[in-house]
Amino acid sequence: MSKVSAAQLEKINIPKSELPRIVIIGGGFGGMRFVKNINTKKYQVVLLDRYNYHTFQPLLYQVATAGLEPDSIAGPLRKTFQQKKNFYFRMATAQNVDPVEKIITTNIGELSYDHLVLACGSITNFFNNAEFEQKAFPLKQLPHALNLRSQILQNFEKAVLKNDENEVQKLLNYVIVGGGPTGVEVAGALGELKKHVLPKDYPELNLNKMQIYLVEGQERLLSGMSQKSGEKAYEYLKKFDVNLYVGKIVKSFDGDTVILNDGMNIPSETLIWAAGVNGNALSGMEQIITRDKRYLVNEYNKVQGFDEVYAIGDVASMQNKDFERGHPMLAPVAIQQANLLSKNMNKGMNHEQWKAFKYVDKGTMATVGRNKAVTEVFGKLKFGGFMAWLMWMFVHLVLIVEFRNKLVIMSNWIWNYFTYDRGTRLIIRPYIKKKKKPVEEEKQKPLQ
Amino acid sequence: MSKVSAAQLEKINIPKSELPRIVIIGGGFGGMRFVKNINTKKYQVVLLDRYNYHTFQPLLYQVATAGLEPDSIAGPLRKTFQQKKNFYFRMATAQNVDPVEKIITTNIGELSYDHLVLACGSITNFFNNAEFEQKAFPLKQLPHALNLRSQILQNFEKAVLKNDENEVQKLLNYVIVGGGPTGVEVAGALGELKKHVLPKDYPELNLNKMQIYLVEGQERLLSGMSQKSGEKAYEYLKKFDVNLYVGKIVKSFDGDTVILNDGMNIPSETLIWAAGVNGNALSGMEQIITRDKRYLVNEYNKVQGFDEVYAIGDVASMQNKDFERGHPMLAPVAIQQANLLSKNMNKGMNHEQWKAFKYVDKGTMATVGRNKAVTEVFGKLKFGGFMAWLMWMFVHLVLIVEFRNKLVIMSNWIWNYFTYDRGTRLIIRPYIKKKKKPVEEEKQKPLQ
Repeated sequence: MSKVSAAQLEKINIPKSELPRIVIIGGGFGGMRFVKNINTKKYQVVLLDRYNYHTFQPLLYQVATAGLEPDSIAGPLRKTFQQKKNFYFRMATAQNVDPVEKIITTNIGELSYDHLVLACGSITNFFNNAEFEQKAFPLKQLPHALNLRSQILQNFEKAVLKNDENEVQKLLNYVIVGGGPTGVEVAGALGELKKHVLPKDYPELNLNKMQIYLVEGQERLLSGMSQKSGEKAYEYLKKFDVNLYVGKIVKSFDGDTVILNDGMNIPSETLIWAAGVNGNALSGMEQIITRDKRYLVNEYNKVQGFDEVYAIGDVASMQNKDFERGHPMLAPVAIQQANLLSKNMNKGMNHEQWKAFKYVDKGTMATVGRNKAVTEVFGKLKFGGFMAWLMWMFVHLVLIVEFRNKLVIMSNWIWNYFTYDRGTRLIIRPYIKKKKKPVEEEKQKPLQ
Repeated sequence: MSKVSAAQLEKINIPKSELPRIVIIGGGFGGMRFVKNINTKKYQVVLLDRYNYHTFQPLLYQVATAGLEPDSIAGPLRKTFQQKKNFYFRMATAQNVDPVEKIITTNIGELSYDHLVLACGSITNFFNNAEFEQKAFPLKQLPHALNLRSQILQNFEKAVLKNDENEVQKLLNYVIVGGGPTGVEVAGALGELKKHVLPKDYPELNLNKMQIYLVEGQERLLSGMSQKSGEKAYEYLKKFDVNLYVGKIVKSFDGDTVILNDGMNIPSETLIWAAGVNGNALSGMEQIITRDKRYLVNEYNKVQGFDEVYAIGDVASMQNKDFERGHPMLAPVAIQQANLLSKNMNKGMNHEQWKAFKYVDKGTMATVGRNKAVTEVFGKLKFGGFMAWLMWMFVHLVLIVEFRNKLVIMSNWIWNYFTYDRGTRLIIRPYIKKKKKPVEEEKQKPLQ
């Protein structure tokens, strides 16, 4: 029996039910799909998320580069599940799992569960470097994207005030770490701002001075895709005048200068961190958390060694001979695992009737900018250029949840395409460097 | 000659010109229109604003009540004036005018002018009550609207956690002070949220408990419009279950309880302040600043007693027998004064050739909600209901600056109308009560 008193549990205020209670932590791609499919005639369903909305993370970079309004890539979670009976949403930050007492601790109190689905996603991996944690810009949540948007625009507003060439250059240098899809997409979007938008806004500045650097530790870009796609992305980014440094590592950043491992110095106030993520595992059950902070799960997404605890998506590490270190941290994996786990649980809790997970890789894609993307379908067909770009837009419009958001995003894209413009270059809340470590905050509030 | 050194002046970094320099303070309706019309072949033009965007203030209340995204009512100022030659924008907060030395002090340095146009608008008038300043929610700027939106949604997220009826009631009570257009519009929008949107999001709560109070010191609503329009607004708000208290005054608010002058107590955490505004006059020239903080100007909008200083819009008080205390603080006044002053200045600085200002009252309007508005055209024609509501939407769409914004706002309104929904109920940056007095901050940064 639980050691927690009724008064403590009451804080989250979910009515008792005769049905077993499933608690889902995280309203990302996995958690949202799971809730959508789970049968609430068989279970009482409680979803926790630190935000009251789902974030469509693949488009965060467009918010950060003034291409889309933040509200258009966020879907209010309560709205999504308005039709769902026997469903409860709580805006809460999960902190700890006690798998023995079956209790989750959150910032608003404790909650007991019968079955737990951990869908807490991933958080930026700063490789335990406090300097990067404090001073670099991550890009995993909507507030991150707004901070970066404010920073970029504030830099330009500061640059017009400077006469010293070096000071101007420091404000116009942007360094991106990480040549995966996020890094490539941010670099391309900054390239477009440089080419089409900012010269008109800042006729006083010589926009040729704006320099975009992309630094990738491996010898190629987009290591999750084919060699050819990586080469295409490289070629496209070159056309946007992006300075590409592959096989190099950012060694330090004091807020003024980025230093690479080969000794190169880049004066810059803006280091954008897209160099990787870790799973967002909570405290508790440390014995089955991998080095990349994911929960070890079996082929049914059950967390190893603990009954009634499941993990899906980025925070789950299902290791087999095809995926020795677990599946890639991608939305389709989370969605497919959520689909299967909900289907399995809807059959009842007898695992003998359950189906094992098998990932179907439908493809991956990354966009570099206007008319330029790389797309791989079923690991075979490979596109580049305009067709790939159209496909990229189509797939993202289909995937985004709310119909209203689809409309707003499509309107923005059509507008941007024909006007060569970006409409939302607003400094609504200025970014002010904080003394508090942003990543510490993130660790304490580990929900996606 | 100026006592300021070249190094200090350099900070704002406007190149020297052979043409006289006009500095405009504030990118609101007046400042923006003035810049649009002024001839930059005759003058070097510098616009200062604390934000990098124009705020379409008439729709702030829709952002605060989750009907529109913030980005859709903001227009980036640099974008608006991309085609303008010999024009400079600086994101700066003006602080002081020295009309003798002809120097403006700002947070980023000092700037000299040949001609000065003060278009700094108005700020919330809390009647020197520190409690209201600290604890009530004003609605004059985009960050205010986002704070209020977060507060309303956070209240509901808190309410589902409570079992104590009194605590729930306190979170569901909303008190609005001021029965002018803003107060009426906020009350109507909250009434719509109560009726159409929130019951679906919060099936656990009894939405009948949500109570909206509108408190107005005068005996009627919309005192700037006709008696009949005031009565119509009263009737419409009654249909939305708004509790209307006319002839009453809010005496105090400690963050938990609103107390009226007749002793009535309303437990509430949310007091929305729409009880009036003052002009946003800067320091300097105190001798010609009125009690409501506006600059006394003559019929050419020239500030009395000082040459080369002009004031337009909310911050100007042009007093004559029709307007003994100056014109009403409305966008059309600011726009008409900006049109005339720019035309006059384009003729040259000989005032004998200038035309005197005469206000043409084209009408006023206020909306209460779905299908319900009041409109008065040329002070004669008076509409109510659906037609007035259509007119209200049409006029606002025409007035808003950016074509992109028009599209996004229209899409949202069509969506809201047919779905009875509000799409943007997001707590992107939670509202956290600060110890710092918000109005003090506003006073130190007096730009619109």
